[in-house]
Amino acid sequence: MTAFLLRNGRPMGGPAADILIRDGRIVAIGPNLTAPDVTVEDSGGALVLPGLVEAHTHLDKSLWGMGWRPNDSGPRLIDKIDNERKLKRELNIDPARQSARQVVLSSSHGSTHIRSHVDVDTDHGLWGIEGVMKTRADYADIIDMDIVAFPQSGLLRRPGTLELMHEAMKAGADVVGGLDPCAIDRDPKGHCDAIFALAEKYGKPLDIHLHEPGEMGAFSMDLIFERTRALGMKGQVVISHAFCLGTPDRALVDPLIDQLAELDIGIMTTGPASRPAPPVQTLLARGIRVCSGSDGIRDTWGPYGNADILERVMLVGLRNNFRRDDEVELAFHVCTQGGADIMRLADYGLKVGAKADLIVVDGETITHAAVARPPRKLVVKHGKVVARNGQSLRSAP
Amino acid sequence: MTAFLLRNGRPMGGPAADILIRDGRIVAIGPNLTAPDVTVEDSGGALVLPGLVEAHTHLDKSLWGMGWRPNDSGPRLIDKIDNERKLKRELNIDPARQSARQVVLSSSHGSTHIRSHVDVDTDHGLWGIEGVMKTRADYADIIDMDIVAFPQSGLLRRPGTLELMHEAMKAGADVVGGLDPCAIDRDPKGHCDAIFALAEKYGKPLDIHLHEPGEMGAFSMDLIFERTRALGMKGQVVISHAFCLGTPDRALVDPLIDQLAELDIGIMTTGPASRPAPPVQTLLARGIRVCSGSDGIRDTWGPYGNADILERVMLVGLRNNFRRDDEVELAFHVCTQGGADIMRLADYGLKVGAKADLIVVDGETITHAAVARPPRKLVVKHGKVVARNGQSLRSAP
Repeated sequence: MTAFLLRNGRPMGGPAADILIRDGRIVAIGPNLTAPDVTVEDSGGALVLPGLVEAHTHLDKSLWGMGWRPNDSGPRLIDKIDNERKLKRELNIDPARQSARQVVLSSSHGSTHIRSHVDVDTDHGLWGIEGVMKTRADYADIIDMDIVAFPQSGLLRRPGTLELMHEAMKAGADVVGGLDPCAIDRDPKGHCDAIFALAEKYGKPLDIHLHEPGEMGAFSMDLIFERTRALGMKGQVVISHAFCLGTPDRALVDPLIDQLAELDIGIMTTGPASRPAPPVQTLLARGIRVCSGSDGIRDTWGPYGNADILERVMLVGLRNNFRRDDEVELAFHVCTQGGADIMRLADYGLKVGAKADLIVVDGETITHAAVARPPRKLVVKHGKVVARNGQSLRSAP
Repeated sequence: MTAFLLRNGRPMGGPAADILIRDGRIVAIGPNLTAPDVTVEDSGGALVLPGLVEAHTHLDKSLWGMGWRPNDSGPRLIDKIDNERKLKRELNIDPARQSARQVVLSSSHGSTHIRSHVDVDTDHGLWGIEGVMKTRADYADIIDMDIVAFPQSGLLRRPGTLELMHEAMKAGADVVGGLDPCAIDRDPKGHCDAIFALAEKYGKPLDIHLHEPGEMGAFSMDLIFERTRALGMKGQVVISHAFCLGTPDRALVDPLIDQLAELDIGIMTTGPASRPAPPVQTLLARGIRVCSGSDGIRDTWGPYGNADILERVMLVGLRNNFRRDDEVELAFHVCTQGGADIMRLADYGLKVGAKADLIVVDGETITHAAVARPPRKLVVKHGKVVARNGQSLRSAP
């Protein structure tokens, strides 16, 4: 295969260096590299950073490119869930088409890996799983993808969903999803038993949406801890959102953090401005894996989002009151290596031997790039340029 | 003067209409307008919105264009205050130069009005006030500006500052500023007495930074209420930040809101993700004037900010969990008419007879424009194009 030489970039904002890539891997980083028959790109002194990791989104249900639809859904979580299920057919929110659109958008901004939760419910069966799997195959050249089978409408409250979750795992989902065992599914023991049984049966990890605040969330977390320990699933569970960790009561939160550390349970936070949020710095200091993501992009839940994970660095930074550069770099870590740690990506990062997934972006430092968010000059995936000047080289339907 | 015809725009996202401008004012809005000897611009079906109002920033101390300086300041408010005062001379953060840069940046994003707090302290005297006044004069064609004399380092705790505040008001400041009567100035009675005396003496309104949380902030607010009432200053006071209004204790907050409504005291909120924040929807429902702004742009306090008030709409929306279009439009209101209400702008808005300060931006609706934030196609100030495709037609030093 052709070698690829990225000249004159500043890896992680350090001194200028060239990066030599062969067979989709970084084979050398240093000054004045050369190789015969090599394709050369010049970075013009820009930053070179590892590919961004979109570790929590919902590829199957963005409305991107479907025209503007004014949002008038009700205030409760269950209102938005019911509203979405209804609109999916009404608006024909086709998971294959919409996931392709979002993948191309994500890639244009420099995401090279995505973990997507994908709805599994009795109204739509595996429409989502099949559509997103098609996108995963069609766009394998620009993105690596984890698919989480996600019982968005509840697991036990809607009979038939558990059977569909089995089908989704058999069809090729990588991760078992869960959702608010108390608040949505109304049967915390039943919900937790069911999702852990799925994980055990298919030998797959778990990624559980937990919006439940305060004491209720702490209770659900405890049920997750018990099962993680009992089933020997240390290191195989992620809790997404985990608003209860943002409760100001340390007597409630500190013991939860102790257990997360002990059981190597990862946390996903979007840096939500309007909700209590997990304390990123505290979690990282305890060695807990933390990742981030866009969550839904312009969907029936709300109008926000553009799939730019550099913007997510800013939002996580703002939420955690990160002001010093070393603090903002924690948010950047969460949006890159943190995601790789959660998704257990092999050979991730800007180092010799790692897979050549990287971005080139203007900026004096990582923090500068995160707050300025200029269009990515280059996005490289599997050692090849897949986006240039903010535009993907692939197109979507 | 020349007439100016803006064709084929959609005012506030409504049906297509032309806007005819003469002598800096909107003279007609409707279909198929014509006029002799008219300069014509075509909006191409884009949105036409009123000029954005940056109602709270610090023009005198942005580091914009000064190269990237890693931030390593301490965690407390007073650390950042002391750090900044020291760095002002060390880095030569020239208020005239820096305010010019930020004004040009703001205008490129569509702000047509700015209220800037400007530091007054014993280390730098009126350096800030004089510099920003120079910018106000030099850039009067692209921006209207309110200048708040702001005792950033404390008023009474640093002897000599009060005298400088008198000088600042005599020099032409429009508004008397204040700052955390308890937490920073350590003398709440003394601080409040002093700033209200300044306001009375110079016949100017007040805009008081109040970061104090919870009970302390509520106490300072009470002192402000007492003086507003005693001096008959209803409608002439603004409280900026007002974090204490975000306290979850309604028994504390509701009486404060009652007084704000009674005394027509305005509130400025940036929609801060990491702090308790005033509840925008509740305040607006009570008829309280609410505005927003960027606060500091890439300064010694932190790296964030780009002076784009459409991005601020998004941040205020995210902070207040606004998801429906009618909710996001409240955030837009705060960033436009809300700022005009706070600054008491005469003839503001997109209507016949109003001053012709407006923007043209792609988007299907106001909410769409706020979440997508494309470069502004046109910015019109005093009836003339001052920025095009995201670029100001003026330059800064």
